[in-house]
Amino acid sequence: MSLDEARLYLVSTARMRAGSLAELVPELAAAGVDLVQLREKEMEAGHLLAVGRPVASACRAAGIPFIVNDRPDVALALDADGVHVGQDDIPPEIARRLLPSGIIGLSTHAPGEVDDALGRSGVDYLAVGPVYETPTKRGRPAVGLDLVRYAADANPKRPWFAIGGIDERSLPDVVAAGATRIVVVRAITEAPDPPAAAAALKALLAGA
Amino acid sequence: MSLDEARLYLVSTARMRAGSLAELVPELAAAGVDLVQLREKEMEAGHLLAVGRPVASACRAAGIPFIVNDRPDVALALDADGVHVGQDDIPPEIARRLLPSGIIGLSTHAPGEVDDALGRSGVDYLAVGPVYETPTKRGRPAVGLDLVRYAADANPKRPWFAIGGIDERSLPDVVAAGATRIVVVRAITEAPDPPAAAAALKALLAGA
Repeated sequence: MSLDEARLYLVSTARMRAGSLAELVPELAAAGVDLVQLREKEMEAGHLLAVGRPVASACRAAGIPFIVNDRPDVALALDADGVHVGQDDIPPEIARRLLPSGIIGLSTHAPGEVDDALGRSGVDYLAVGPVYETPTKRGRPAVGLDLVRYAADANPKRPWFAIGGIDERSLPDVVAAGATRIVVVRAITEAPDPPAAAAALKALLAGA
Repeated sequence: MSLDEARLYLVSTARMRAGSLAELVPELAAAGVDLVQLREKEMEAGHLLAVGRPVASACRAAGIPFIVNDRPDVALALDADGVHVGQDDIPPEIARRLLPSGIIGLSTHAPGEVDDALGRSGVDYLAVGPVYETPTKRGRPAVGLDLVRYAADANPKRPWFAIGGIDERSLPDVVAAGATRIVVVRAITEAPDPPAAAAALKALLAGA
């Protein structure tokens, strides 16, 4: 799976409600997850390396890119495929120096940030949101579908993913607003049957 | 100031009791601080970059190495002279890949860790401690002067610094146990007059 073809991007902690991310990766990849990002905001690097190794191996075996949140140094240590950074993290240009051939993703939360990200050569993909309010990013107001429409109208030459509280129920609206790729967290991590949830989301994206 | 000559190593947050680290660096360097490490355990990378820039500039102007705690990626972004990692952080060998000519320091808390660190080619200096109990590292028991004696007896070819609750009062004991270099946090950061505190510590180290 290459980034260009990726439609369904899972961001998860090492443990999901239904089991460990590493153990679920083979089924999730088979069900349509195209990219996996490990996001552990509170973990020390040593712990993160320990929980990240089996996820990295599982993704490699499943043939899908493995992305580390926030820390290009940890991404390098895990031989990950890339790193995802936020507006307040290490700048993409520095991440690029650390991971010359890695995938670098950047979160964007406003039209100006989308424009800025598209003007930066170091950014391989954008995450655009949060479309809906999400407990994953407390204190960050939902930007709604307007930003999705804005990104779609900008017609970027690089992949961009709508993110933030998207689930099976809201996905048709997100697709109608112009998204063809999404990031999900809870819609898969909190699902009783994560592969089934992934398959349902992927089916809805098929028409996008 | 080179690492080999360094005797007094300050670890601090960006703000000390008496003022900002960046503003105090010129006086501290003049008073005998040979190395500065910025340690902000709870800060996001973006914030860390923002508070780190003036510290990096001040250290460069003062001619003393500037070290970043824990994050080689941030060290690179700040064009710092090196990174200090703990046993649970990014391994020194990975830090070395990110900072090929940087100073890499490693914390050690037991004889086995001292031996291990001395056997690793990527480690430029060791921190050995905590000698005394310190609120900076809650939950980590003090190792006492025994580990200082152990390190001194090992007679490492690379610099090692005693660390942990060392102050003007206890420093003579630490020196008597074999240390010639120390790291301090509170003895300077909590002092009403940090440069005076640094000068006093340096004077006590002069006989070591």
